[in-house]
Amino acid sequence: MRLADLSEHSGVSLATIKYYLREGLLPPGRRINATQAEYDESHLRRLRLVRAMIQVGRIPVATVREVLAHVDDDSLGLTFRLGAALWALPHPTEPSSDPEDDPSTTAAHTLVADLLARLGWRTTCEVGDLNPAHRALVAALATLDRLGYPLDTDDLLPYARTMEQAAAYDLDRMEILPTPREQAEYAVAGAVLFEPVLLNLRRLAQAEESGRRYGL
Amino acid sequence: MRLADLSEHSGVSLATIKYYLREGLLPPGRRINATQAEYDESHLRRLRLVRAMIQVGRIPVATVREVLAHVDDDSLGLTFRLGAALWALPHPTEPSSDPEDDPSTTAAHTLVADLLARLGWRTTCEVGDLNPAHRALVAALATLDRLGYPLDTDDLLPYARTMEQAAAYDLDRMEILPTPREQAEYAVAGAVLFEPVLLNLRRLAQAEESGRRYGL
Repeated sequence: MRLADLSEHSGVSLATIKYYLREGLLPPGRRINATQAEYDESHLRRLRLVRAMIQVGRIPVATVREVLAHVDDDSLGLTFRLGAALWALPHPTEPSSDPEDDPSTTAAHTLVADLLARLGWRTTCEVGDLNPAHRALVAALATLDRLGYPLDTDDLLPYARTMEQAAAYDLDRMEILPTPREQAEYAVAGAVLFEPVLLNLRRLAQAEESGRRYGL
Repeated sequence: MRLADLSEHSGVSLATIKYYLREGLLPPGRRINATQAEYDESHLRRLRLVRAMIQVGRIPVATVREVLAHVDDDSLGLTFRLGAALWALPHPTEPSSDPEDDPSTTAAHTLVADLLARLGWRTTCEVGDLNPAHRALVAALATLDRLGYPLDTDDLLPYARTMEQAAAYDLDRMEILPTPREQAEYAVAGAVLFEPVLLNLRRLAQAEESGRRYGL
């Protein structure tokens, strides 16, 4: 399809598409003459993902470019390809000006290490401290401790188990897609777009469980 | 304890405590003479919660005041007390300038209604559309649809089931506390502080599951 068709099919304005092309967020089309290029389904898919990251995730252009470089890196095995793409995304964490070597942070490091050992998450134990989710989790637990709401391994274990189930569903749905590149794109879209779904499902589930236990 | 002790025990500056008192976020102490008042454990607990909402949750003072009014409302049954306090909190959702009557929103409304019926969440079905989490969930699913990532009930069911489990753990831990007021305080703190823990556990679980399935 031509640029105008790409705009119509995606609902993204021509100006925005040209901006994405200039910024290298969308690969160039296949040139068919001096002034025109041909675009395909992969451009539509990529446009969808870029829009999700920029318009919904409010992710800076430079970060989007970095995430996409990993998504497109055919030299990586799937675990590292997904990992690199997801690790480049911003992580849910609180704003903090606290030092990273206070007693709460030290306790949180020990807590996460103990939790991972109890869970038997071997992959995460091996390369876990490279994962920004690991650091963000430590920071979040340190904040809880600092504010007077300390957690222990037994508090966290059942939540980690439910997230383990959710992660299995994530990958089951991802595996339906035919190529590693599409799978990596899907994982990124899921990380950006699915978190509000999950958190609001949690709030609804709390209301439901509360109604069951304590009546209306 | 005196004001100075309250500051020392909580780690919150005198100026900040006085500001919270002026704004009605912290109830006044018991007057013991013209210039001094006595504070107790309930003030320490409240200070902890206010700090969590303002410093970590970045929640506006007026919203904090509203949440606390529900937390302190002894006339409410526990379900409505928790509900009112949590519903007053900001909900995780994306910034959106989209109309609320487009086809994606209509489809998302149907999807959520169908999901709740399939789950058999009767409380949520009855009063669910009053719950801002219901609206925020509809908005999040409409965004996914609009961006070309539509979900159906079968996609969402397993995630809702895992959140149902997580909600049961939430309430189990809350019930350890002795009074409905402390339970409501705990629920609010959990909503503000625990979401980053859950989301980062999910990211770690994804990395773990990916390593298991696809190797390193």
